[in-house]
Amino acid sequence: MSAKGVTVWFTGLPGAGKSTVARLLAARLIARGVPTEVLDGDAVRTSLSRDLGFTRRDRDSNVARIGFVCGLLTRNGITAIAAAVAPYAEARAALRAEIGDFLEIHVATPLEVCEARDRSGRYAAARRGELQNFTGVSDPYEAPAAPDLRLDLAERSAEACAVEVEALLETRGYLG
Amino acid sequence: MSAKGVTVWFTGLPGAGKSTVARLLAARLIARGVPTEVLDGDAVRTSLSRDLGFTRRDRDSNVARIGFVCGLLTRNGITAIAAAVAPYAEARAALRAEIGDFLEIHVATPLEVCEARDRSGRYAAARRGELQNFTGVSDPYEAPAAPDLRLDLAERSAEACAVEVEALLETRGYLG
Repeated sequence: MSAKGVTVWFTGLPGAGKSTVARLLAARLIARGVPTEVLDGDAVRTSLSRDLGFTRRDRDSNVARIGFVCGLLTRNGITAIAAAVAPYAEARAALRAEIGDFLEIHVATPLEVCEARDRSGRYAAARRGELQNFTGVSDPYEAPAAPDLRLDLAERSAEACAVEVEALLETRGYLG
Repeated sequence: MSAKGVTVWFTGLPGAGKSTVARLLAARLIARGVPTEVLDGDAVRTSLSRDLGFTRRDRDSNVARIGFVCGLLTRNGITAIAAAVAPYAEARAALRAEIGDFLEIHVATPLEVCEARDRSGRYAAARRGELQNFTGVSDPYEAPAAPDLRLDLAERSAEACAVEVEALLETRGYLG
Protein backbone atom coordinates (compact mmCIF):
# COMPACT_ATOMS: atom_id res chain seq x y z
CA MET A 1 0.00 0.00 0.00
CA SER A 2 1.27 3.45 -0.72
CA ALA A 3 1.10 5.93 2.10
CA LYS A 4 2.30 9.45 2.70
CA GLY A 5 5.15 9.61 5.18
CA VAL A 6 4.49 11.01 8.61
CA THR A 7 6.07 11.04 12.04
CA VAL A 8 3.83 9.94 14.89
CA TRP A 9 5.44 10.97 18.15
CA PHE A 10 4.17 9.48 21.39
CA THR A 11 5.14 11.76 24.24
CA GLY A 12 4.33 11.20 27.90
CA LEU A 13 5.73 10.29 31.28
CA PRO A 14 7.94 7.25 31.82
CA GLY A 15 5.69 4.21 32.09
CA ALA A 16 2.73 5.97 30.47
CA GLY A 17 2.41 3.26 27.82
CA LYS A 18 4.05 5.02 24.89
CA SER A 19 6.04 2.03 23.63
CA THR A 20 3.07 -0.31 24.05
CA VAL A 21 0.74 1.81 21.94
CA ALA A 22 3.54 2.51 19.45
CA ARG A 23 4.14 -1.20 18.91
CA LEU A 24 0.42 -1.96 18.58
CA LEU A 25 0.01 0.85 16.07
CA ALA A 26 3.05 -0.35 14.11
CA ALA A 27 1.63 -3.88 13.95
CA ARG A 28 -1.69 -2.55 12.63
CA LEU A 29 -0.01 -0.41 10.00
CA ILE A 30 2.38 -3.15 8.89
CA ALA A 31 -0.62 -5.49 8.55
CA ARG A 32 -2.09 -2.89 6.15
CA GLY A 33 1.14 -2.79 4.17
CA VAL A 34 2.19 0.64 5.37
CA PRO A 35 5.99 0.95 5.59
CA THR A 36 6.58 1.66 9.25
CA GLU A 37 9.49 2.01 11.64
CA VAL A 38 9.42 2.38 15.42
CA LEU A 39 12.07 4.51 17.09
CA ASP A 40 11.91 3.74 20.75
CA GLY A 41 13.55 6.25 23.07
CA ASP A 42 14.94 3.56 25.34
CA ALA A 43 16.11 1.39 22.46
CA VAL A 44 18.00 4.14 20.62
CA ARG A 45 19.99 4.81 23.75
CA THR A 46 21.97 1.69 22.83
CA SER A 47 22.59 2.86 19.26
CA LEU A 48 22.09 6.50 18.28
CA SER A 49 22.41 7.96 21.76
CA ARG A 50 24.64 5.67 23.73
CA ASP A 51 26.69 8.62 24.95
CA LEU A 52 23.78 10.66 26.27
CA GLY A 53 22.48 11.06 29.80
CA PHE A 54 19.38 12.77 31.08
CA THR A 55 20.29 16.41 31.53
CA ARG A 56 18.11 18.82 29.60
CA ARG A 57 20.86 19.25 27.03
CA ASP A 58 21.26 15.50 26.58
CA ARG A 59 17.51 14.94 26.42
CA ASP A 60 17.19 17.60 23.76
CA SER A 61 20.03 15.98 21.79
CA ASN A 62 18.34 12.59 22.05
CA VAL A 63 15.03 13.99 20.82
CA ALA A 64 16.78 15.87 18.01
CA ARG A 65 18.60 12.74 16.83
CA ILE A 66 15.45 10.65 16.84
CA GLY A 67 13.75 13.53 15.05
CA PHE A 68 16.48 13.67 12.42
CA VAL A 69 15.95 9.99 11.64
CA CYS A 70 12.15 10.33 11.69
CA GLY A 71 12.46 13.21 9.24
CA LEU A 72 14.51 11.15 6.79
CA LEU A 73 12.03 8.28 6.99
CA THR A 74 9.01 10.57 6.71
CA ARG A 75 10.18 12.33 3.59
CA ASN A 76 10.67 8.91 2.01
CA GLY A 77 7.07 7.89 2.55
CA ILE A 78 7.60 5.88 5.70
CA THR A 79 5.52 6.16 8.85
CA ALA A 80 8.04 6.80 11.62
CA ILE A 81 6.65 6.12 15.06
CA ALA A 82 8.66 7.56 17.93
CA ALA A 83 8.05 6.60 21.53
CA ALA A 84 10.14 8.93 23.66
CA VAL A 85 9.35 11.10 26.67
CA ALA A 86 10.42 14.36 24.94
CA PRO A 87 9.53 16.33 28.05
CA TYR A 88 10.25 19.82 26.71
CA ALA A 89 7.63 21.63 24.61
CA GLU A 90 10.29 23.62 22.78
CA ALA A 91 12.04 20.49 21.52
CA ARG A 92 8.72 19.04 20.35
CA ALA A 93 7.86 22.29 18.55
CA ALA A 94 11.22 22.10 16.81
CA LEU A 95 10.40 18.59 15.60
CA ARG A 96 7.10 19.73 14.14
CA ALA A 97 8.76 22.69 12.43
CA GLU A 98 11.50 20.52 10.98
CA ILE A 99 9.50 17.47 9.94
CA GLY A 100 6.24 19.10 8.86
CA ASP A 101 4.23 15.90 8.61
CA PHE A 102 4.21 15.41 12.34
CA LEU A 103 1.56 14.23 14.78
CA GLU A 104 2.06 14.78 18.48
CA ILE A 105 0.24 12.17 20.52
CA HIS A 106 0.11 12.75 24.24
CA VAL A 107 -0.07 9.51 26.19
CA ALA A 108 -1.62 11.27 29.13
CA THR A 109 -1.48 8.59 31.80
CA PRO A 110 -1.40 10.50 35.12
CA LEU A 111 1.77 10.47 37.19
CA GLU A 112 0.06 8.58 40.06
CA VAL A 113 -0.94 5.77 37.69
CA CYS A 114 2.51 5.53 36.09
CA GLU A 115 4.15 5.55 39.49
CA ALA A 116 1.76 3.06 41.08
CA ARG A 117 2.38 0.65 38.18
CA ASP A 118 6.13 1.32 38.01
CA ARG A 119 6.84 -1.77 35.95
CA SER A 120 10.50 -0.89 35.54
CA GLY A 121 11.05 0.08 39.18
CA ARG A 122 12.47 3.39 38.00
CA TYR A 123 9.97 5.58 39.88
CA ALA A 124 10.91 3.89 43.13
CA ALA A 125 14.59 4.29 42.33
CA ALA A 126 14.02 7.97 41.52
CA ARG A 127 12.17 8.50 44.78
CA ARG A 128 15.06 6.87 46.64
CA GLY A 129 17.36 9.32 44.88
CA GLU A 130 19.18 6.56 43.01
CA LEU A 131 18.07 7.90 39.61
CA GLN A 132 18.71 11.57 38.91
CA ASN A 133 16.86 13.71 36.37
CA PHE A 134 13.87 11.38 36.28
CA THR A 135 10.93 12.91 34.46
CA GLY A 136 7.89 13.33 36.71
CA VAL A 137 9.91 12.99 39.91
CA SER A 138 12.99 15.19 39.75
CA ASP A 139 12.65 16.57 36.23
CA PRO A 140 9.75 18.44 34.64
CA TYR A 141 7.31 17.11 32.06
CA GLU A 142 5.76 19.87 29.99
CA ALA A 143 2.46 18.37 28.89
CA PRO A 144 1.46 19.33 25.32
CA ALA A 145 -0.98 22.24 25.28
CA ALA A 146 -2.49 21.27 21.94
CA PRO A 147 -1.49 17.75 20.91
CA ASP A 148 -2.97 16.25 17.77
CA LEU A 149 -4.44 13.57 20.02
CA ARG A 150 -4.53 12.85 23.71
CA LEU A 151 -4.79 9.24 24.81
CA ASP A 152 -6.18 8.15 28.13
CA LEU A 153 -4.94 4.68 28.94
CA ALA A 154 -6.74 4.72 32.26
CA GLU A 155 -10.04 4.81 30.31
CA ARG A 156 -9.24 2.67 27.31
CA SER A 157 -7.09 -0.30 26.36
CA ALA A 158 -3.78 0.20 24.59
CA GLU A 159 -5.25 -1.54 21.53
CA ALA A 160 -8.21 0.87 21.49
CA CYS A 161 -5.75 3.75 21.68
CA ALA A 162 -3.77 2.36 18.75
CA VAL A 163 -7.01 2.16 16.75
CA GLU A 164 -7.70 5.78 17.65
CA VAL A 165 -4.31 6.88 16.31
CA GLU A 166 -4.83 4.83 13.16
CA ALA A 167 -8.16 6.62 12.66
CA LEU A 168 -6.38 9.97 13.05
CA LEU A 169 -3.88 8.94 10.35
CA GLU A 170 -6.84 8.12 8.09
CA THR A 171 -8.53 11.44 8.78
CA ARG A 172 -5.37 13.39 8.11
CA GLY A 173 -4.87 11.62 4.79
CA TYR A 174 -1.75 9.67 5.67
CA LEU A 175 -3.10 6.26 4.74
CA GLY A 176 -3.54 6.86 1.01
CA MET B 1 10.42 3.42 -9.87
CA SER B 2 10.59 0.63 -7.38
CA ALA B 3 14.02 -0.35 -6.19
CA LYS B 4 15.49 -2.64 -3.59
CA GLY B 5 17.05 -0.79 -0.71
CA VAL B 6 20.81 -0.77 -0.39
CA THR B 7 23.53 1.15 1.39
CA VAL B 8 26.30 2.49 -0.81
CA TRP B 9 29.19 3.51 1.40
CA PHE B 10 31.94 5.68 -0.04
CA THR B 11 35.05 5.27 2.06
CA GLY B 12 38.37 6.98 1.48
CA LEU B 13 40.77 9.64 2.68
CA PRO B 14 39.65 13.18 3.48
CA GLY B 15 39.42 15.10 0.23
CA ALA B 16 39.34 11.93 -1.88
CA GLY B 17 36.11 13.01 -3.58
CA LYS B 18 33.61 10.85 -1.65
CA SER B 19 30.94 13.54 -1.23
CA THR B 20 31.28 14.68 -4.82
CA VAL B 21 30.71 11.22 -6.27
CA ALA B 22 27.97 10.56 -3.69
CA ARG B 23 26.06 13.66 -4.75
CA LEU B 24 26.46 12.91 -8.45
CA LEU B 25 25.25 9.35 -7.90
CA ALA B 26 22.27 10.60 -5.85
CA ALA B 27 21.29 13.03 -8.61
CA ARG B 28 21.41 10.24 -11.20
CA LEU B 29 19.32 7.90 -9.05
CA ILE B 30 16.77 10.57 -8.15
CA ALA B 31 16.43 11.39 -11.85
CA ARG B 32 15.54 7.71 -12.34
CA GLY B 33 12.95 7.92 -9.58
CA VAL B 34 14.93 5.87 -7.07
CA PRO B 35 14.27 6.99 -3.50
CA THR B 36 17.68 8.10 -2.30
CA GLU B 37 19.22 9.77 0.72
CA VAL B 38 22.77 11.01 1.18
CA LEU B 39 24.34 10.78 4.62
CA ASP B 40 27.43 12.91 4.51
CA GLY B 41 29.96 12.30 7.26
CA ASP B 42 30.76 15.98 7.65
CA ALA B 43 27.10 17.03 7.52
CA VAL B 44 25.90 14.59 10.19
CA ARG B 45 28.47 16.01 12.57
CA THR B 46 26.06 18.94 12.98
CA SER B 47 23.07 16.68 13.69
CA LEU B 48 23.55 13.03 14.64
CA SER B 49 27.11 13.35 15.87
CA ARG B 50 27.56 16.86 17.13
CA ASP B 51 29.13 15.55 20.33
CA LEU B 52 31.75 13.39 18.67
CA GLY B 53 35.40 14.07 18.02
CA PHE B 54 37.95 12.10 16.04
CA THR B 55 39.36 9.53 18.41
CA ARG B 56 38.98 5.94 17.24
CA ARG B 57 36.10 5.47 19.66
CA ASP B 58 34.31 8.58 18.43
CA ARG B 59 34.94 7.72 14.80
CA ASP B 60 33.53 4.25 15.35
CA SER B 61 30.45 5.77 17.04
CA ASN B 62 29.97 8.16 14.15
CA VAL B 63 30.19 5.35 11.61
CA ALA B 64 27.83 3.19 13.68
CA ARG B 65 25.22 5.98 13.92
CA ILE B 66 25.34 6.67 10.19
CA GLY B 67 25.13 2.92 9.67
CA PHE B 68 22.10 2.64 11.94
CA VAL B 69 20.27 5.25 9.87
CA CYS B 70 21.41 3.69 6.57
CA GLY B 71 20.10 0.34 7.79
CA LEU B 72 16.65 1.76 8.55
CA LEU B 73 16.49 3.42 5.15
CA THR B 74 17.79 0.35 3.32
CA ARG B 75 15.26 -2.03 4.81
CA ASN B 76 12.54 0.36 3.68
CA GLY B 77 13.60 0.22 0.05
CA ILE B 78 15.64 3.41 0.01
CA THR B 79 19.12 3.76 -1.43
CA ALA B 80 21.20 5.23 1.37
CA ILE B 81 24.44 6.75 0.18
CA ALA B 82 27.01 7.40 2.88
CA ALA B 83 30.10 9.50 2.29
CA ALA B 84 32.27 9.12 5.35
CA VAL B 85 35.95 8.27 5.83
CA ALA B 86 35.21 5.18 7.99
CA PRO B 87 38.92 4.49 8.32
CA TYR B 88 38.71 1.23 10.26
CA ALA B 89 38.12 -2.05 8.46
CA GLU B 90 36.47 -3.59 11.49
CA ALA B 91 33.79 -0.87 11.65
CA ARG B 92 33.10 -1.26 7.94
CA ALA B 93 32.82 -5.03 8.31
CA ALA B 94 30.30 -4.46 11.10
CA LEU B 95 28.21 -2.28 8.79
CA ARG B 96 28.13 -4.96 6.13
CA ALA B 97 27.17 -7.61 8.67
CA GLU B 98 24.40 -5.46 10.11
CA ILE B 99 22.94 -3.99 6.94
CA GLY B 100 23.37 -6.91 4.55
CA ASP B 101 22.55 -4.99 1.39
CA PHE B 102 25.77 -3.05 1.54
CA LEU B 103 28.25 -1.96 -1.10
CA GLU B 104 31.66 -0.72 -0.06
CA ILE B 105 33.08 1.72 -2.57
CA HIS B 106 36.68 2.72 -2.08
CA VAL B 107 37.38 6.20 -3.38
CA ALA B 108 41.04 5.41 -3.77
CA THR B 109 42.51 8.82 -4.49
CA PRO B 110 46.13 8.63 -3.29
CA LEU B 111 47.19 10.60 -0.24
CA GLU B 112 49.57 12.78 -2.27
CA VAL B 113 46.74 13.84 -4.58
CA CYS B 114 44.32 14.56 -1.71
CA GLU B 115 46.98 16.51 0.12
CA ALA B 116 48.17 18.45 -2.92
CA ARG B 117 44.59 19.49 -3.64
CA ASP B 118 43.70 20.15 0.02
CA ARG B 119 40.60 22.15 -0.83
CA SER B 120 39.58 22.49 2.81
CA GLY B 121 43.06 23.36 4.08
CA ARG B 122 42.78 20.55 6.61
CA TYR B 123 45.84 18.64 5.44
CA ALA B 124 47.97 21.74 5.92
CA ALA B 125 46.42 22.31 9.35
CA ALA B 126 47.08 18.67 10.27
CA ARG B 127 50.71 18.94 9.12
CA ARG B 128 51.12 22.07 11.25
CA GLY B 129 49.74 20.05 14.18
CA GLU B 130 46.64 22.25 14.51
CA LEU B 131 44.33 19.32 13.72
CA GLN B 132 44.75 16.15 15.73
CA ASN B 133 43.67 12.67 14.68
CA PHE B 134 43.57 13.56 11.02
CA THR B 135 43.19 10.51 8.80
CA GLY B 136 46.15 10.06 6.46
CA VAL B 137 48.42 12.36 8.46
CA SER B 138 48.23 11.48 12.14
CA ASP B 139 45.58 8.75 12.04
CA PRO B 140 45.55 5.51 10.02
CA TYR B 141 43.38 4.73 7.03
CA GLU B 142 42.86 1.02 6.57
CA ALA B 143 42.19 0.71 2.83
CA PRO B 144 39.55 -1.92 1.97
CA ALA B 145 41.13 -5.21 0.98
CA ALA B 146 38.16 -6.29 -1.12
CA PRO B 147 35.77 -3.41 -1.80
CA ASP B 148 32.79 -3.95 -4.06
CA LEU B 149 34.30 -1.28 -6.29
CA ARG B 150 37.43 0.84 -6.30
CA LEU B 151 37.24 4.26 -7.92
CA ASP B 152 40.23 6.07 -9.29
CA LEU B 153 39.46 9.76 -9.54
CA ALA B 154 42.94 10.47 -10.82
CA GLU B 155 42.06 8.46 -13.95
CA ARG B 156 38.39 9.30 -14.43
CA SER B 157 35.99 12.16 -13.79
CA ALA B 158 33.70 12.15 -10.76
CA GLU B 159 30.73 11.83 -13.11
CA ALA B 160 32.26 8.79 -14.80
CA CYS B 161 32.79 7.28 -11.35
CA ALA B 162 29.14 7.91 -10.43
CA VAL B 163 28.10 6.14 -13.65
CA GLU B 164 30.33 3.23 -12.67
CA VAL B 165 28.62 2.90 -9.29
CA GLU B 166 25.21 3.15 -10.94
CA ALA B 167 26.21 0.30 -13.24
CA LEU B 168 27.25 -1.76 -10.22
CA LEU B 169 23.82 -1.16 -8.66
CA GLU B 170 22.25 -2.42 -11.88
CA THR B 171 24.45 -5.50 -11.98
CA ARG B 172 23.68 -6.35 -8.39
CA GLY B 173 19.95 -6.06 -8.99
CA TYR B 174 19.27 -2.99 -6.88
CA LEU B 175 17.63 -0.95 -9.61
CA GLY B 176 14.56 -3.13 -10.14
